[in-house]
Amino acid sequence: MKIGIVGATGAVGRQMIKSLEERKIDVSELRLFASPRSLGTKINCFGEDVGVQVVEDGCFKGLDYVLGAVEADLSEKYAADIVKSGAVFVDNSKAFRMDPNVPLVVPEINGEDAKHNNGIISNPNCSTIITCMAVYPIAKLSPIKKMIASTYQAVSGAGMHGITELEEEIAALAEGRDFTPKTFTKQIAYNCIPLISSLTENGYSGEEMKMQNEGRKIMHLPDLNVTCTCVRVPVFRSHAISVSLQCEDPLTLDEVFNAYKDFPGVKLTEDGFPTPLETSDQDTVFVGRIRKDLVFDGGVALWCCGDQIRKGAASNAVQIIEYLTK
Amino acid sequence: MKIGIVGATGAVGRQMIKSLEERKIDVSELRLFASPRSLGTKINCFGEDVGVQVVEDGCFKGLDYVLGAVEADLSEKYAADIVKSGAVFVDNSKAFRMDPNVPLVVPEINGEDAKHNNGIISNPNCSTIITCMAVYPIAKLSPIKKMIASTYQAVSGAGMHGITELEEEIAALAEGRDFTPKTFTKQIAYNCIPLISSLTENGYSGEEMKMQNEGRKIMHLPDLNVTCTCVRVPVFRSHAISVSLQCEDPLTLDEVFNAYKDFPGVKLTEDGFPTPLETSDQDTVFVGRIRKDLVFDGGVALWCCGDQIRKGAASNAVQIIEYLTK
Repeated sequence: MKIGIVGATGAVGRQMIKSLEERKIDVSELRLFASPRSLGTKINCFGEDVGVQVVEDGCFKGLDYVLGAVEADLSEKYAADIVKSGAVFVDNSKAFRMDPNVPLVVPEINGEDAKHNNGIISNPNCSTIITCMAVYPIAKLSPIKKMIASTYQAVSGAGMHGITELEEEIAALAEGRDFTPKTFTKQIAYNCIPLISSLTENGYSGEEMKMQNEGRKIMHLPDLNVTCTCVRVPVFRSHAISVSLQCEDPLTLDEVFNAYKDFPGVKLTEDGFPTPLETSDQDTVFVGRIRKDLVFDGGVALWCCGDQIRKGAASNAVQIIEYLTK
Repeated sequence: MKIGIVGATGAVGRQMIKSLEERKIDVSELRLFASPRSLGTKINCFGEDVGVQVVEDGCFKGLDYVLGAVEADLSEKYAADIVKSGAVFVDNSKAFRMDPNVPLVVPEINGEDAKHNNGIISNPNCSTIITCMAVYPIAKLSPIKKMIASTYQAVSGAGMHGITELEEEIAALAEGRDFTPKTFTKQIAYNCIPLISSLTENGYSGEEMKMQNEGRKIMHLPDLNVTCTCVRVPVFRSHAISVSLQCEDPLTLDEVFNAYKDFPGVKLTEDGFPTPLETSDQDTVFVGRIRKDLVFDGGVALWCCGDQIRKGAASNAVQIIEYLTK
């Protein structure tokens, strides 16, 4: 299989390479694309050093899949060329997620949707993937009607720059040096920032609305209402989400615990609780603190964690290719 | 006024001294009590160095108020002596909070309750104080029926040891040294720990149930149902809470914004949003991100922050004395 990655030098792009290797995807050719300032960079892929190239006319020719790990504006710019060249574009940006002609896919949940693509498949928002993985086993018991979610999002959500900004702020504070936040709007070290992306008309951030809008599309729950609060916390890689939900039917805790038994990609932490740190650098989403919700009759409260760069982005995209080619 | 402080050398005890000074409480004598290992410690109070003493027979005699900044077992041990000696015990521990004979007071909300004391007044849980301050202006418009809260709690909630543990873990990680968490059950540096105190029978932690049970008592809302998830985050002093709520009557956002206009001790952050860091080391609770809840019809979602050691503990206790003596 011939695969391209646009944005190959970023946090998500580099993880895509690792995830292709780990999942033993049968790659006969890998083309890595990045911006001109990365020209000369070589990245080890499947034991070989592969040089980075820039996107130019005809560069996607012959590829079967192109993984997108760039911002929405670039995805929009490249999409037509990728599709025209005959490759399927599995795009991690928000560009096409809500397009009715583009499937939005978490393979464990709605892998079948990926088959009905017109050349583009969208990879969902990171917190949304992790939350959907955590609550979908419950949604299979009875459709979720209401969900209230508060996130604890890692700095990796802002890419390499987010990770280095937290590291540099911690170092600067330790050494008594001044610093100016660049990637985040305020200091993230020893702080929580309750606004990710910008506000929309209804007072919710774009990031917060994704939980409802992408959640509806992924889980095939058009009537799902979600109140979400997205908060950046000084954690490196894993997002965590505190969730309260109510389904159409009241559920017992036994039913809920059983729902996770055969669901792939999600593990219950039955002894203790999962934390972002412990769940980092793996593709599994962890769920814990399951208990009866005290506000939603017959509803459930839970806590979940998953690696933002992996299941929240790169690994999910690679799994989409895996699903389509298995 | 003659005031004693038990637990005077801890994070909350030391802040009680500062809050007495800042609020210009008319203190004619201040007695500082701590454990024997603090004997010899002197603390500057109102410009004078005051030596720490241990609790012993008759030590509370002549005092008007004793501020408690010790764990519940010690509060229980000292309470009878304090009351017998004729002082009013303003206790920050959980020991007496749910005792129907003991008022549980946030002065801006239910200061009047403090007057009906039998020698003991309880200071509420820190997250509960900050959340109640943030939502009570709304409760005055229409009684709150349902509330879902997820907390982002600072390490100061575990006292001095919590603060030093975060500092030491960050330093150890920077230097590549090993460490073992002592105050927290897991590493708190670059992590979130979704369990504060221990689990009760219903799967909620003691800390989480305080939000409902203490919230009902403080706000005089016996029918309030609260689902709370309490999470420790790597922040030093201010707690933050993400809240969704529904009142008996549907509310408009205009009504909600107006409700904060004349409410003391709470400020709306109308431009941007408050963060734990910016709201630290002051007594004011800050509220932001107010928007229509998307799950609760006519309900409200908001974000609030307040200093855990100050309004969440020491300053609220000092305000209770201020309220009773003004």
